[in-house]
This record gives sequence, C-alpha cells and structure tokens, in this order.
Amino acid sequence: MSAAAFVPFEAPTTKAADEEGSVLRPRFDAAGLVTAVVTDAESGMLLMVAHMDAEALDLTIRTGIAHYHSRSRGTLWKKGETSGALQSVREIRTDCDQDAVWLKVDVAKPEDTCHTGRATCFYRRIDTAGDGRALLFD
Amino acid sequence: MSAAAFVPFEAPTTKAADEEGSVLRPRFDAAGLVTAVVTDAESGMLLMVAHMDAEALDLTIRTGIAHYHSRSRGTLWKKGETSGALQSVREIRTDCDQDAVWLKVDVAKPEDTCHTGRATCFYRRIDTAGDGRALLFD
Repeated sequence: MSAAAFVPFEAPTTKAADEEGSVLRPRFDAAGLVTAVVTDAESGMLLMVAHMDAEALDLTIRTGIAHYHSRSRGTLWKKGETSGALQSVREIRTDCDQDAVWLKVDVAKPEDTCHTGRATCFYRRIDTAGDGRALLFD
Repeated sequence: MSAAAFVPFEAPTTKAADEEGSVLRPRFDAAGLVTAVVTDAESGMLLMVAHMDAEALDLTIRTGIAHYHSRSRGTLWKKGETSGALQSVREIRTDCDQDAVWLKVDVAKPEDTCHTGRATCFYRRIDTAGDGRALLFD
C-alpha cells in the first residue's frame, strides 16, 4: 500500500456536469456506498457485485487491490484476505452519474471468488422457458 | 408481452438455503430493488447498472425485453421505449444471495444505450497513475 495520504473525494455537483467532467466525484448513496461491478480482466466474466464506501474506493485506487464495504458486517472488506482470492485491479471505470464503478481484476485464487466456493457468484440462470421462477445451475 | 398472469416471487428464506436452491427468491432491498448488471451478449461489454423491482423483473422475464425501475422518476422504465435502444434479453442470471441479476442483452440501437449518447455508461476510466481523482475518456 502506498504511503500517500488520503485525498478526499470531491462532492458531486450537478449530474449533467459530472457526466461530462474529468473529475471523479463519486455519487455515494444515503448509506455512503457506490455499486462495484467486478469482471475478470482476462475472460470478461462477471464475477461479483459488491459495494464500496469512500475508504474502500480510495484504498482500491491507491493499492491496486480490491477493497469493498461489507454491508452485512458493516466493515471494510479486503476481498480475499482470508480466502486468498485477492483481486488485483487492472482498470477502474465509472459510469455516467458516478454511482457505480467497474473493476477489471485478476484473481489470485479464482475458485474462491464466491464464498460458496465458485469462480463467480453468478452460477445460476433463470429458466425463462418455464414460469420464470426456477434457477438452473449452468 | 405474454398474456400469462403475474406469478409472485417467493420470499427469501435463509441465505444459505437460497444460495444452493433452484428457486428464484430475489432478495429485494428496503426500497424493493435488486441491482441489475447489463452486458452486451455479443461483445461482453458492460453497458450499464440499473435497478429492478418485482414488477420490472417479472416483465423482463416474461417479455424478454429489459425493464427497470427508475429511482429518479420512481416508475417502471422500459429501457429504450423513447430512445429506441431496446434491450432483448438472451439470458438472466442471479448471484449467490439473489440480490443482483445479470442480463446479457442485444441492443437495438447501441449508440443510445447511455442517455449521454454513448454505447456504454462506463465511458471513463479512473486515472490511477496520478492522485486517483481524475477521469480519462478512453
């Protein structure tokens, strides 16, 4: 981790200005979070969806290792710290209104990306051929 | 749109059961929403992140056309109804705890996927080489 001091994020201005601007102004929600979409930098596979507060986003940017905010535990969550499935960040993008970020990552231990012991959290497909209420593991 | 009647979603049970189950039990948040991650079925590109309430998710499943819930307007939002950038859904997946869905879509008018007139909402990259507070349009 870099020893550089924390640089606060600027507050959002108007949506129109922030959409075309060159300044990162994350639009944190009422709980102080933005949505993080995480894909595998190599395969493009969607791995997980998580959330970041300012601290997690800043640490992710500064260290190049993905950090999130655990909503269930209410704490900073360095992904893979216990499982070994650390995520090295190749690129971070943000969306038009800056309330979501997209991380392209390399995973140290892909088989443990999901806490259920899978390479992705999205291991089930909705069976739209039936009544649309069943899940298929494929 | 199918004339089939609305089939209510089952309520979530325990996280552990819902993670390994074959029943779709969306874990809507306090606002009644799940997160929807939308990628291009052909290129794999991340297009947008949006939200769905039960009505939007049900309509998406039944019609094969992506519907969302507009948080700013507080209404059902049939994506592309005015812009023409309709999204035909090839596949819908859900994640371990069923609070997010992943849509793989074909877009009728890709250049209007983002309301800013772009093919994706994620048109800016965080410049992690500097102080991590600048955005690059590349």
